[in-house]
Amino acid sequence: MSLVVVGSVAYDGVETPHGRVDRMLGGAATYISLAASYFTKTRLVAIVGDDFADEDTEFIARRGIDLEGLERVPGKTFFWAGKYSEDMNDRDTLTTELNVFADFDPKIPESYRGEKYLLLGNIQPALQRSVLAQMKKPRLAGGDTMNYWINDFREELLATIRQWDFLLINDSEARLLAGETNLRRAASKILGMGPHTLVIKRGEYGAMLFRNNSYFVVPGYLLEDVFDPTGAGDCFAGGFIGYLAEQGFDLEAGHIGRGDLSRAVIYGSVMGSFCCEKFGVERFRTLTRAEIDARFNEFRAFTSF
Amino acid sequence: MSLVVVGSVAYDGVETPHGRVDRMLGGAATYISLAASYFTKTRLVAIVGDDFADEDTEFIARRGIDLEGLERVPGKTFFWAGKYSEDMNDRDTLTTELNVFADFDPKIPESYRGEKYLLLGNIQPALQRSVLAQMKKPRLAGGDTMNYWINDFREELLATIRQWDFLLINDSEARLLAGETNLRRAASKILGMGPHTLVIKRGEYGAMLFRNNSYFVVPGYLLEDVFDPTGAGDCFAGGFIGYLAEQGFDLEAGHIGRGDLSRAVIYGSVMGSFCCEKFGVERFRTLTRAEIDARFNEFRAFTSF
Repeated sequence: MSLVVVGSVAYDGVETPHGRVDRMLGGAATYISLAASYFTKTRLVAIVGDDFADEDTEFIARRGIDLEGLERVPGKTFFWAGKYSEDMNDRDTLTTELNVFADFDPKIPESYRGEKYLLLGNIQPALQRSVLAQMKKPRLAGGDTMNYWINDFREELLATIRQWDFLLINDSEARLLAGETNLRRAASKILGMGPHTLVIKRGEYGAMLFRNNSYFVVPGYLLEDVFDPTGAGDCFAGGFIGYLAEQGFDLEAGHIGRGDLSRAVIYGSVMGSFCCEKFGVERFRTLTRAEIDARFNEFRAFTSF
Repeated sequence: MSLVVVGSVAYDGVETPHGRVDRMLGGAATYISLAASYFTKTRLVAIVGDDFADEDTEFIARRGIDLEGLERVPGKTFFWAGKYSEDMNDRDTLTTELNVFADFDPKIPESYRGEKYLLLGNIQPALQRSVLAQMKKPRLAGGDTMNYWINDFREELLATIRQWDFLLINDSEARLLAGETNLRRAASKILGMGPHTLVIKRGEYGAMLFRNNSYFVVPGYLLEDVFDPTGAGDCFAGGFIGYLAEQGFDLEAGHIGRGDLSRAVIYGSVMGSFCCEKFGVERFRTLTRAEIDARFNEFRAFTSF
């Protein structure tokens, strides 16, 4: 079962206590697609400029990711630069140059429209809505958003997520969206906004999944070295939806159990943890499915009692 | 199997976003003993002044806690007051009046000395050492400490914990003790300091247990209302050691498996979560073992996959 991923493909500059890279492949849709590609056929929709390097295109293509939806236009690719704090729980944005991404108007290739799984990376809510409208009848559609849209485009965002099966956000975004500090209450409120499944990412502290009558919580994987957390949340999303697509689950039809969703959260956590082990997307140059499954089993070992 | 608990019995003044109580029963040894009393016979060693109310003595005694080691001297009982931040993850100490606690020199009653389980609450490391020296041959001994002793009494503290089976501290204390930000590395360093078992408490994010070749991590229980987190870490300690004492486990002899310790961490988490549901020790006026075991099962339900 194939997955359509829509979002940003970018170049990033990142500084962490472990080092600095001035320019490397990044972007939410890049991370989501790379992570999902270990589980399912993935089809990317994004926009890049004419500075986008052939070697980066080839790297993505080597993971079997369909690039028919990767639009190339004159101009520069989206560039973001940030610097992490000593404990890497905070980061300052140093530069945001939208470049060609400023005019991104996602056009879903005809060959993608019948796919059953859709992951909408963090872009303007109206664009997310237009993507869903272009799809025929996905079984499972959802995505991410961020503080900026929650604060300044609230009504548009609410109209967008009302149509989603699942919403994947971090804890501070969940609190902001719900206007409620307590996460359990915040989750109840958000489940009233449309999505029947809510995943809240908590960075190093793990993740939580809420549905109307159940919830699941997993702690974060304890890495000895976090080199670069950039993209970890997107890799979580890619692992989560990638696993569900691999299994062919159909939430609307109720063909999915709590255990299935819980395992998807674990695969998301696994992919997020691998992402942090090297700068940028480097870890995905060597990562294998066997390593992923081994870490899944490690999660079971350190959480079961 | 009985447990000896040594530490502070106090009066607390607490202000949280949910309300304020000017004076109520508190103290680490009080919370530890109350939590442990649901699992095993518990024998308290502490000091109070002549202002200590009969109703508080009776409340503790009604939980079956042995008060032979509760010394009463002329003067006022230890008083602490604090105010919690809006999200309750931080608190400011408003008042610390040591009063009779300043001269606490724990004398273990003869009838306690042969007990097999010892939990040393957060007191001066030299006093913790003198308590252990008074015990005949405990199977399992350990305790808590805090930033102040780690910073200003480091050598004394290291000499003390070298004799312990287990150390129970929070994440910031673990980082400070090890001089290492990464918790997995910090745990390895601390396991080289003596204790074969390290429990790191993470507040709302749960707890971790480390031994030389294994670790276990559990997320925190998601309460809808946290009324007052005071004592939650001590209740965790009481549930942890209480469960091990109830089972009669003997770590030295290797009669304990990873599963046993993991379940002790869950019972610790359960007791910490109940503690937060009301102000001070109030929850323990009505809490039953059946409620405790039901929440233990709830932990299994929301963490297993």
